[in-house]
Amino acid sequence: MAWTSNRICQTLGIALPIVQAPMAGSDSPDMTAAVSEAGGLGSLACAMLSPEHVEEAAAYIRSKTKNPINLNFFCHNPPKADAGRDTRWREEISAYFAEFGIAPDAQSAVANRAPFDDALCAVVEAVRPHVVSFHFGLPEAGLLDRVKSTGAIVMSSATTVAEAVWLEQNGCDIVIAQGAEAGGHRGMFLSDDIATQAGTLALVPQIVDAVDVPVIASGGIGDARGIAAAFMLGADGVQLGTAYLKCPEARLNPLHARALPSARDDNTALTNVFTGRPARGIMNRLMRDLGPMSDIAPDFPTAGKALAPLRVRAESQGRDDFTNLWAGQAAHLSPSFPAGELTHILMAQARARLKSF
Amino acid sequence: MAWTSNRICQTLGIALPIVQAPMAGSDSPDMTAAVSEAGGLGSLACAMLSPEHVEEAAAYIRSKTKNPINLNFFCHNPPKADAGRDTRWREEISAYFAEFGIAPDAQSAVANRAPFDDALCAVVEAVRPHVVSFHFGLPEAGLLDRVKSTGAIVMSSATTVAEAVWLEQNGCDIVIAQGAEAGGHRGMFLSDDIATQAGTLALVPQIVDAVDVPVIASGGIGDARGIAAAFMLGADGVQLGTAYLKCPEARLNPLHARALPSARDDNTALTNVFTGRPARGIMNRLMRDLGPMSDIAPDFPTAGKALAPLRVRAESQGRDDFTNLWAGQAAHLSPSFPAGELTHILMAQARARLKSF
Repeated sequence: MAWTSNRICQTLGIALPIVQAPMAGSDSPDMTAAVSEAGGLGSLACAMLSPEHVEEAAAYIRSKTKNPINLNFFCHNPPKADAGRDTRWREEISAYFAEFGIAPDAQSAVANRAPFDDALCAVVEAVRPHVVSFHFGLPEAGLLDRVKSTGAIVMSSATTVAEAVWLEQNGCDIVIAQGAEAGGHRGMFLSDDIATQAGTLALVPQIVDAVDVPVIASGGIGDARGIAAAFMLGADGVQLGTAYLKCPEARLNPLHARALPSARDDNTALTNVFTGRPARGIMNRLMRDLGPMSDIAPDFPTAGKALAPLRVRAESQGRDDFTNLWAGQAAHLSPSFPAGELTHILMAQARARLKSF
Repeated sequence: MAWTSNRICQTLGIALPIVQAPMAGSDSPDMTAAVSEAGGLGSLACAMLSPEHVEEAAAYIRSKTKNPINLNFFCHNPPKADAGRDTRWREEISAYFAEFGIAPDAQSAVANRAPFDDALCAVVEAVRPHVVSFHFGLPEAGLLDRVKSTGAIVMSSATTVAEAVWLEQNGCDIVIAQGAEAGGHRGMFLSDDIATQAGTLALVPQIVDAVDVPVIASGGIGDARGIAAAFMLGADGVQLGTAYLKCPEARLNPLHARALPSARDDNTALTNVFTGRPARGIMNRLMRDLGPMSDIAPDFPTAGKALAPLRVRAESQGRDDFTNLWAGQAAHLSPSFPAGELTHILMAQARARLKSF
């Protein structure tokens, strides 16, 4: 089967059915452009960017490639103010403040993680990207209608069959099946129970059976073997995140970049201590001490705000004790190449593997 | 590629590189015989059988097929007596005893889960099965040497790369890579941290890269798509458990059989409340109330002994609140056929799928 007859390639107008996962705080316009120019779908995570930044970044990407690109947004419900919970969380981490000689009431600037709203939607209407993807469900119907009116293909992540069915019923054009192996934030939005989250191998075929829209497999895909496996499972395409973290185009926190080569099959975990939502990262001190899952961590994304002064101080000392080191369970498998080359190599190897039997 | 050139088929002398997973309390000699006769590797879990029973069952299987069979044993360290812990566990479950009108000191017979020992080793020496597999590591060197002296191929489960390397270094001939999706007990023996257990898609290629011995993929493989995917990941063979639970040859607790069709991608979890060791089953009352993971559950397998009167009483009322309902995350995918037919069908479909690209 040639990729040209692939449903994802046809729907998105791309040459290779591979999506570079949006990674808030770690991807870059150069990465997006390189992947799209190589024939895959480059994504730019916009959750931590201002509307002006998104517009600027999109213009830059467009100057580098005329191929389809994906702008990605979070669509979580903004956290409810809960002073009691915030106080309890500050108490939970107060010993660290003392240890690092930081005043208990210290504050540090923290990158916002804003949900998709009118201002960001206006940017989408101006930029008109070929694809818009969401994490944590879909935005409210009014905003979604505006996005779809631009002609954009809409994608979102499902961590269960129920979420996939919900996404399809609510207007999502392509479902990304996100297995538990995936690095970064789980896209879960109908459940918050990580104990019942399924691995990619089990999840993908069950989602494929449950929806009519194309399905992209993600989570634990680190090399061509994982890509080939995803197609055997019935996926129409693949999304890789951690693999692209090793590209020179990644804009990684230096401590994150330093930690990445240490990622193994058995040293990442889902944790909510950095942001309040479950996300997979390399085990470090904060995860070991307070989690990896904590009942006390306040709602996304406020857990991170309280940690910010601690993180800044520790990082200035070269310590990643309080830094989120997002990585998936297959991080160790991925080779390091420029993003465009990586896209070509992985898909060529996967194709050869698929034809080898 | 024909199965005849497959490493697992060559090593084990079987026609199809598929292993029916041993399932203590749910498999049966008829199942073992049917799978082996069909060309796969039928397994019989011996952990809950007396040496006499094992010998008898093996003789029965041998009367049905001349093909290779696998006898499987647990090799956990026997639990340390810990009266304080036992008391705390009994307190934890005492309210249920009151609810069901059971005396707090009631006892019920419970099937033993014995580790591999001299008596069971003597049975292996008498029966001389083609394959002996272990769960929870390997037995002590003296016993392992005796098993290998019979000419048996030795297999064991690894849930991490570190465990796979340990197994190879300690004389294991074939490693079963058990992803987190798998139903029943995790084979983990170098770590007890379920937070860092990897899914099959991420685990298999990393184990394949780390060891020279053949690797069998297990966990979350429910149909031909999962089987084909496992080969793409680099596995030499596959092991399926839950899929065989739907066969008429399964000797399932009737409440387990009743619950099985309700298994979905998102309603199983790893739990230690039934036995003291993490195992995946369909969520039920005990798991929801006390776990799914409990710090209080005593060492394997003693947690189950205290629960036994409760389980017996509830089951007599048709309630599975305290019954372990082992199932993997792909349970929903598996069709129901007699074990031999299932073996043929799955492997024929997988072969067709592998050749379809």
